[in-house]
Amino acid sequence: MSIQLTILGYNSATPKVDSHPTAQLLNVNERFILIDCGEGTQVQLRRARAKFSKINHIFISHLHGDHVFGLIGFISTMQLMGKITPLNIFGPEGIKDFILNQLKHTQSKCSYEIIFHELSHKDSRLIFEDNKLEVYNIPLDHRIYCNGYLVKEKPRLKNLNIEAIQAYPEIETCDYFNLKKGKDFVLSSGEIIPNDVLTFPQEEPLSYAFCSDTRYKEDLVDIIKGVDLLYHETTFDKSLGDLAYKTGHSTAEQAATIAKKANVGKLIMGHFSNRYTDLTILLDEARKVFPKTYLPKNLEIVEVKRN
Amino acid sequence: MSIQLTILGYNSATPKVDSHPTAQLLNVNERFILIDCGEGTQVQLRRARAKFSKINHIFISHLHGDHVFGLIGFISTMQLMGKITPLNIFGPEGIKDFILNQLKHTQSKCSYEIIFHELSHKDSRLIFEDNKLEVYNIPLDHRIYCNGYLVKEKPRLKNLNIEAIQAYPEIETCDYFNLKKGKDFVLSSGEIIPNDVLTFPQEEPLSYAFCSDTRYKEDLVDIIKGVDLLYHETTFDKSLGDLAYKTGHSTAEQAATIAKKANVGKLIMGHFSNRYTDLTILLDEARKVFPKTYLPKNLEIVEVKRN
Repeated sequence: MSIQLTILGYNSATPKVDSHPTAQLLNVNERFILIDCGEGTQVQLRRARAKFSKINHIFISHLHGDHVFGLIGFISTMQLMGKITPLNIFGPEGIKDFILNQLKHTQSKCSYEIIFHELSHKDSRLIFEDNKLEVYNIPLDHRIYCNGYLVKEKPRLKNLNIEAIQAYPEIETCDYFNLKKGKDFVLSSGEIIPNDVLTFPQEEPLSYAFCSDTRYKEDLVDIIKGVDLLYHETTFDKSLGDLAYKTGHSTAEQAATIAKKANVGKLIMGHFSNRYTDLTILLDEARKVFPKTYLPKNLEIVEVKRN
Repeated sequence: MSIQLTILGYNSATPKVDSHPTAQLLNVNERFILIDCGEGTQVQLRRARAKFSKINHIFISHLHGDHVFGLIGFISTMQLMGKITPLNIFGPEGIKDFILNQLKHTQSKCSYEIIFHELSHKDSRLIFEDNKLEVYNIPLDHRIYCNGYLVKEKPRLKNLNIEAIQAYPEIETCDYFNLKKGKDFVLSSGEIIPNDVLTFPQEEPLSYAFCSDTRYKEDLVDIIKGVDLLYHETTFDKSLGDLAYKTGHSTAEQAATIAKKANVGKLIMGHFSNRYTDLTILLDEARKVFPKTYLPKNLEIVEVKRN
């Protein structure tokens, strides 16, 4: 069980020679999802040696350029590479027209289907699930409609305690799947054998929360409580709290406060204002509140796993 | 008098780690124009240490992604940098909606005016001039509507031959501007003094032609005849002539043939298919026809000047 987060870009505003706008590749047990896609993300994916063909789900937080201008290039490249499997794009209402209008003018005929999932609701909901993971949107408070994303491993099937099972000859092989899924067993006598007796305890699924551009938002805490890994933007230091509020961003202290209150495993910072040439002021500020805070590194793979 | 061409990107299809799609910055006597703008062009401009604020004219050949996907990012960055002067964008019909729709969805309010000059005509015309240069479109033959661009220095004012002028006391200082512009002088007696007698011979203006994606097109020769510098795409080698025709591209030999027939000063190749890891096959093929052919280099500045 592991989650691997590759940091493809972590700066705000504009791409520069050694600085890339927001984009992350998340690998949850070999299910790959791309989160945000600033200009140049496809080149960063190449630097990270990512397999483009494995990316079939993209989640865009909001339609500001530093989070989405690389999407059309990625879509086009997938087409040139002969992609066949459908690509699912989750993002704010408008993202479909944003992309389709560009494809229209470039007279592109996609070799694969693009399925748009436009979001406009203001609460947190399950927006995607398959056999490996679940994704929930996290409503954020930015200048325009913006969502973070909470990604949770799907609980795996439980391991059977064969020794315990053998004490009940009535349990047959065809019952095992229900036991693995966590169901109790009912004997013909009516006696209930609790699942815990027949299986080994299961570890908690791993989880990751991506909180893109947002003002300090206390109710994030309930949504992301206990996640193993949290990315929360830290655009400014606390001396610029008013500017952060005005521009729809957070200070390092505010991000760390959310991390602390939600009791997360680890906080990754990002989306730094270009005014900071040295980010330690932001790191120090956050660590005073939440010590397990870390600066992102270009193309770093942050791993969370359980054995 | 000089023309400096900075090669920002010269490959086809998709941006890669060490390969950038088409973009060039042309400096004609300190008038800067950007020609094509594939994804990542703004980062290449930074690498080239270009002054963004001096770029007020952009010419896009056609609306394929590898020539235009970087435009929205460049526009947005200019806005973040507080640009005030208008930005003129020349390109195929549709480019206005292509950009404005993206600005709409990203809820961008530009700090400066964007003036779109949409082209749909099929002949070569003067499409822009100021006191330093003239730009003509060059109709090309690609899969979609596509123009190259011919950029010519505006002829400078002639230098006066003061010694010769002093032989005619009737010529006053207020007449000098007309002489510099090349006009003959008419004495009160009716005698005409030819301009050549009163001024020094003037050098030919410098010129550059950019021939983006196109099939072999013989009638380019008349339009670009005698240019000092020619960029002409060379996507394939001649063994792939059928593929070149089918995809709307040229072979190295075809580009060199155009260069030879037009008697240009120098040919720069580009827009290479990704199949070539070694470009010497293309260079050798072209040089057999036109020896003054050169491969582009990343961020190279190609200079043409007269003293």
